[in-house]
Amino acid sequence: MRKVGVAILGLGVVGGGTYKILTEHREMYQKAHGVDITVEAVLELRKERALALGVEESRIASSIAEICSNPDVDIVVEVMGGVEPAKTFVLAALNAGKSVVTSNKEMFCKYSYELEKVAKHNRVGLYYEATCVGGVPVIRALLDNLQGNVITSLVGIVNGTTNYILSKMSNSGADYGEALKEAQRLGYAEANPTADVEGYDATYKLSILSSLAFHTKIPYTKIYREGITNATPTDIAYGKQLGYCLKLLAIGKNTERGIEVRVHPTFIRTSHPLASVNDSYNAVYITGDSVEDVMLYGRGAGAAPTGSAIVGDIIYCATHVQHNYSTFENTEKANPSTKFVTNFESAYYIRLAAEDRAGVLSKITSVLGRNSISVAQIIQEESGEDGKVPIIVVTHVTHEHNITKAVQDINATSACASVVSVIRVYD
Amino acid sequence: MRKVGVAILGLGVVGGGTYKILTEHREMYQKAHGVDITVEAVLELRKERALALGVEESRIASSIAEICSNPDVDIVVEVMGGVEPAKTFVLAALNAGKSVVTSNKEMFCKYSYELEKVAKHNRVGLYYEATCVGGVPVIRALLDNLQGNVITSLVGIVNGTTNYILSKMSNSGADYGEALKEAQRLGYAEANPTADVEGYDATYKLSILSSLAFHTKIPYTKIYREGITNATPTDIAYGKQLGYCLKLLAIGKNTERGIEVRVHPTFIRTSHPLASVNDSYNAVYITGDSVEDVMLYGRGAGAAPTGSAIVGDIIYCATHVQHNYSTFENTEKANPSTKFVTNFESAYYIRLAAEDRAGVLSKITSVLGRNSISVAQIIQEESGEDGKVPIIVVTHVTHEHNITKAVQDINATSACASVVSVIRVYD
Repeated sequence: MRKVGVAILGLGVVGGGTYKILTEHREMYQKAHGVDITVEAVLELRKERALALGVEESRIASSIAEICSNPDVDIVVEVMGGVEPAKTFVLAALNAGKSVVTSNKEMFCKYSYELEKVAKHNRVGLYYEATCVGGVPVIRALLDNLQGNVITSLVGIVNGTTNYILSKMSNSGADYGEALKEAQRLGYAEANPTADVEGYDATYKLSILSSLAFHTKIPYTKIYREGITNATPTDIAYGKQLGYCLKLLAIGKNTERGIEVRVHPTFIRTSHPLASVNDSYNAVYITGDSVEDVMLYGRGAGAAPTGSAIVGDIIYCATHVQHNYSTFENTEKANPSTKFVTNFESAYYIRLAAEDRAGVLSKITSVLGRNSISVAQIIQEESGEDGKVPIIVVTHVTHEHNITKAVQDINATSACASVVSVIRVYD
Repeated sequence: MRKVGVAILGLGVVGGGTYKILTEHREMYQKAHGVDITVEAVLELRKERALALGVEESRIASSIAEICSNPDVDIVVEVMGGVEPAKTFVLAALNAGKSVVTSNKEMFCKYSYELEKVAKHNRVGLYYEATCVGGVPVIRALLDNLQGNVITSLVGIVNGTTNYILSKMSNSGADYGEALKEAQRLGYAEANPTADVEGYDATYKLSILSSLAFHTKIPYTKIYREGITNATPTDIAYGKQLGYCLKLLAIGKNTERGIEVRVHPTFIRTSHPLASVNDSYNAVYITGDSVEDVMLYGRGAGAAPTGSAIVGDIIYCATHVQHNYSTFENTEKANPSTKFVTNFESAYYIRLAAEDRAGVLSKITSVLGRNSISVAQIIQEESGEDGKVPIIVVTHVTHEHNITKAVQDINATSACASVVSVIRVYD
């Protein structure tokens, strides 16, 4: 039986999970896939972590060089996270003729051009299913299942932390701070939650997925980004009343106008399949010209689900004689011919606080009309404790610039109303 | 650029869809995948169909032999359906050294052992993503993404016709006959709907999917099958009241007791992701020991979605130098060591019509208790026009044999109540 040696860089949550899956299922993989996969080396500064997992002391490497020169290592699994030293280590492994499997979205998103070039040059594999949406098979679906389609849109809930927080706020009426604390207590959010709650993590994933879907490099820097820190229970409650659910969506669209990529809190109709993706679950909703709509749903993070994606890649790499790479020219920057649309087309939810006197609503709607915005729904409430009247407007699809202009105009109109929040509506 | 010639056997709905996708996207596939895929031949008795699609007359073959001896044909796409002559044609193509892509679930389910043997012998590919759940990437997910998992369960809504009918009954209160007629009018059901409504189609798909998931041959004949023809608006309405939704589920479980495979109408909690799979949409919900829960959702049928799966397989076949086959020993019959469980574990919904007199409920519950069935919920209604009292019992998880016995006992108990319907509940 063919022997395949693996080295794992980093025995944190995902690395430890991967180690366990590989060692516990070794016999099954021999039987089902005809390969004997063993963990030949690990690189982990905290030696006690490795020993606690049952790694023999002789297999704890002291440097990446040691792993690169180990002839028993065929595949290097990088699950350290962060750009450096991960990138240096991955390049060293590729240059040493090892295939690489990684879950590192930030590194892959920022440097896939360089990494793929080196992998191709050395004729080794570079696999990254685990970079996006944990165990959910979305990257291989784009490469090997939906590749006959012109993908027109890819919309995802790709970050478990923010989805947990928004689900919590929606179910319990908690405010953002309370929901974040609960997420941290349960291990769904980090002590420093910035990368998740500000949407950075989602932009890395959208960059990787939309590049594959639209067959051209979409750098994460081209993605409009807005986090969930301003989400309020008030807006969530009004949204519910209107039949919407608040989600941090990663939206990629490929239209005649160009490519639109954005990550922001979004109201989505409760009847849409993405609306029932709750808590730390993730999903990607893909529309193609022949497949129509497909949704892939599951656990977007965690030791075992991410480990499942990594081990899937390891077995794939170990049982295929030929490696395949991205099906688009993976340039360092966006291809100059790619047009990015920033004046998005969307419907909008606008909450205003208005003076309690006659004619205010008419002033507001006239500003909207002047900016070519047509109104789909309006709720006007009784005035609140502050003497202000909450007015909620949902618009038909319009352009982002129209909304920006209308908000400025309303706020400037003799102080009869001010815009409290603007949330895009996915329709 | 490498040229890859395709022959399509059958230009019905799916064949026509495939032809269109291939011809319309030829340039895109050249650019993205580096192959020039052309349709070199078609086999279609109704010549006018081919001409209407724009096939040149010279490419309309008159026999399978002509296609097998055509050196420009590399891949044969079989989308004729039915066992014969499809199987004979596929075997001829494989033996002529052509790879085969098929959407034919009945043929593949019944003869995959023989077909795979011949494909391996000739070192050609045999691809069948389109046999199950249209454009939804479930087969490749099992082979290339989730293959590191012990899959413990695979539950699917894998038939669009029945899902449309049950959705219609649930939304409009229509009875089975009315909903079937509407499905036929819309082209979701065939004039002779037996294969769909009696669950045969679902057993073929469950056979293919559960064999891959559980790494052993699961012949469709081992699958318990019950169609939807007895579904009633009354039970659907009671189910709703209890928080359930009626679906034709294809259920595969791999437990310590053995393998459980069954297709039958099932009540599923409305909060379960499968419950929101409506109309002609399909989905497969897979649970693995490391990936936890994954759901793959989309259009389960239709020219374009099924064409998407076929074209995905064609491109995969055309761009991979090595073909991969099932990751289990594909035997003709079930492996003698595979244990099939027929005394299922499930919760049950039982509707009874009882005499309107004292002590009846106590008699019923005592029969259930005697058969080791514990009750989770009971609804007792006012007596109906027929003077009978409808009683609905939902049980905790128990064994199928206990239920069978209890139903016999109740029906035999001095005619104080009779069982009107029994529906399994997926929990």
